[in-house]
Amino acid sequence: MIFSSKKLESAVDALSSLPGVGRKTALRLALHLEKDDLGLVERLGKSLIELKTLTKRCAKCHNLSDEDVCNICLQAHRRQDLICVVESIRDVMAIEETGQFNGLYHVLGGRISPLEGVGPEDLSIELLQQRVATGKVNEIIMAISPSIEGETTIYYISKTLEDYQLDISIIARGISFGGELEYADELTLSRSIESRIPYQSKNS
Amino acid sequence: MIFSSKKLESAVDALSSLPGVGRKTALRLALHLEKDDLGLVERLGKSLIELKTLTKRCAKCHNLSDEDVCNICLQAHRRQDLICVVESIRDVMAIEETGQFNGLYHVLGGRISPLEGVGPEDLSIELLQQRVATGKVNEIIMAISPSIEGETTIYYISKTLEDYQLDISIIARGISFGGELEYADELTLSRSIESRIPYQSKNS
Repeated sequence: MIFSSKKLESAVDALSSLPGVGRKTALRLALHLEKDDLGLVERLGKSLIELKTLTKRCAKCHNLSDEDVCNICLQAHRRQDLICVVESIRDVMAIEETGQFNGLYHVLGGRISPLEGVGPEDLSIELLQQRVATGKVNEIIMAISPSIEGETTIYYISKTLEDYQLDISIIARGISFGGELEYADELTLSRSIESRIPYQSKNS
Repeated sequence: MIFSSKKLESAVDALSSLPGVGRKTALRLALHLEKDDLGLVERLGKSLIELKTLTKRCAKCHNLSDEDVCNICLQAHRRQDLICVVESIRDVMAIEETGQFNGLYHVLGGRISPLEGVGPEDLSIELLQQRVATGKVNEIIMAISPSIEGETTIYYISKTLEDYQLDISIIARGISFGGELEYADELTLSRSIESRIPYQSKNS
């Protein structure tokens, strides 16, 4: 691209560093923002800096939170003995959207993937073990996208937790192998939680 | 969407105000930026604020510029008597990309569209007339996307300039009707400039 303005070039460079944003899209966004007089640039800047500096991980479930403990963990009406283990914040949002789950969550922050250099120590598995060790958890639902890495993660976590009195289930394989959980429609996702399959029982 | 963080919600709101960015994409971008530790948020913020506050319109051609006169208008080797009239900054970039045009540009800032409330006074047509009035311009190429609004704009400008000794041509209709100039491939665009069609002659 040939730029008449170095400032425009810098903005396009920065915008095209975003995932899924190519140079043409970045140019379109930059020129939109340059023209904008509704303060969108200021609002974007402020909200992104606040997002980066003022948020933290929930001390209980590792979800993104404005406070030490997230507003899902703080809801007393939720079943405290049921934990749904997910890969990401987006998965929590997708399941909350269904309105069908009334337990707590645990956000791993990814899945075990030797190819991508993600090991168990990169995920919040130790924090999950600590939650289970309190003895207050009866059941864990593994709501992890079906894939090789997902299976590995489920297997690793179930091994880590095998000494505890605990039912572990996985969400029904209504989601096609290789599919991404966050793109499933609400009905499929909601049903796959309802018809979860026993995986490891505390009575075995 | 159900958010565990108000800061995340604000960031998604701001990002989804961008053209072509839906809520799901905005969420993906926000979570990417939240995790990022390479200073992308700071780089984005700085470059966008500089883009908005430190750029101006070139006093000659109305292109986006860091200085009073843009670096295209400053190139002495360009033909000073030939002006290519385009709708947008992106069109200048697309034509520069072809490397086939060695005249100057004039950026209108849009096209006349009564439906969208864009009249001739919203475009830099008066500035174009002032350039022509200096007597230094011999030829104008209208590189405006073929469409009803484009034809209207060409007609209006040619009427405005009819008292001057001037050749006016339009780029060859190699670009399909309704198509956007900036998405044309370089060859088509370069050829359409080469085989421009006389529209109004100073000798008529």
